[in-house]
Amino acid sequence: MQASSRPVEPRLAPPCPIARAADLLGDRWTLLILRNATVGMTRFEAFKSDLGIADNILSARLGRLVDAGVLAKVPYRDNGRTRHEYRLTESGADVLPLLHALLRWGQRYTESTEPADPMKIVHLACGHPAGDDGVCEHCGQPLVRDEEAWLRPWRSATPFPLARPVASGSLAAGSAAQSPG
Amino acid sequence: MQASSRPVEPRLAPPCPIARAADLLGDRWTLLILRNATVGMTRFEAFKSDLGIADNILSARLGRLVDAGVLAKVPYRDNGRTRHEYRLTESGADVLPLLHALLRWGQRYTESTEPADPMKIVHLACGHPAGDDGVCEHCGQPLVRDEEAWLRPWRSATPFPLARPVASGSLAAGSAAQSPG
Repeated sequence: MQASSRPVEPRLAPPCPIARAADLLGDRWTLLILRNATVGMTRFEAFKSDLGIADNILSARLGRLVDAGVLAKVPYRDNGRTRHEYRLTESGADVLPLLHALLRWGQRYTESTEPADPMKIVHLACGHPAGDDGVCEHCGQPLVRDEEAWLRPWRSATPFPLARPVASGSLAAGSAAQSPG
Repeated sequence: MQASSRPVEPRLAPPCPIARAADLLGDRWTLLILRNATVGMTRFEAFKSDLGIADNILSARLGRLVDAGVLAKVPYRDNGRTRHEYRLTESGADVLPLLHALLRWGQRYTESTEPADPMKIVHLACGHPAGDDGVCEHCGQPLVRDEEAWLRPWRSATPFPLARPVASGSLAAGSAAQSPG
């Protein structure tokens, strides 16, 4: 028997799509992991060191994202050993509009305690800041993921290209995918 | 002395605007409270009953949103007693693109465990589903907040108009605003 006042269980997916998305993505660590994955971070130790997150919390968050199909756990070879990294799937790559909504809201309504030039979305095809409405505000071309990058001046003067998602199903967790080398 | 491996304190606002926004908004309850406020919910008891959330958790979330200026605590008269309700400010109303990003992602990549017709954004001026790109896909007019509503068929056959934000500064928490009646 379940008490009726308990919060909704994650496995009981409600009819509201905002609630279903918030069940998975409404979590600060999860959003920071997906932000980092969006600019190409893939490895446990890299997330751990960049976010200053405890091993068990990071493991739980990555595991939940893999279970939800947002990240794929992909084997790679490291000095003769098989290790795993975490790559965005199509649904993980499609978290981009959510990250951009956070970016705009954060820029508009919050301030850094350290001075820093603002983050920008850059259109790699023309090399200029692109704005955020699907069309480059400099050259007028449609923005596609492969030509977008994030300029985060407090980290680097060079924009970070956005990571390509892994092809759906080709490199799923536990698959017997051949590793290169 | 602070250990360098501790998570970022919320009061130390990082240069990344996504991280600053995620510090406040990267929380499932917070997103559900803002979703409900967006369709006009204002009162503690209403949030509590709709979300099935414990008093202390709801109090903490509402308090944090008021402190951040996302909700305003506004007095009203109830049978001769002064009570308070929680209204969206401008920054609270501007969480809408984030909620719409969750809506789109949730519709695309998650499924309800109960059958339900899908949520739609409705353009009140023409009465048709509007799509989500800033222009009504039925009539071609620009979408403005006052003419947007959310149709949530599992709750009501009538669309819910979006709440208007309170004018900035006019009804701030603790102000001596006159209550009507």
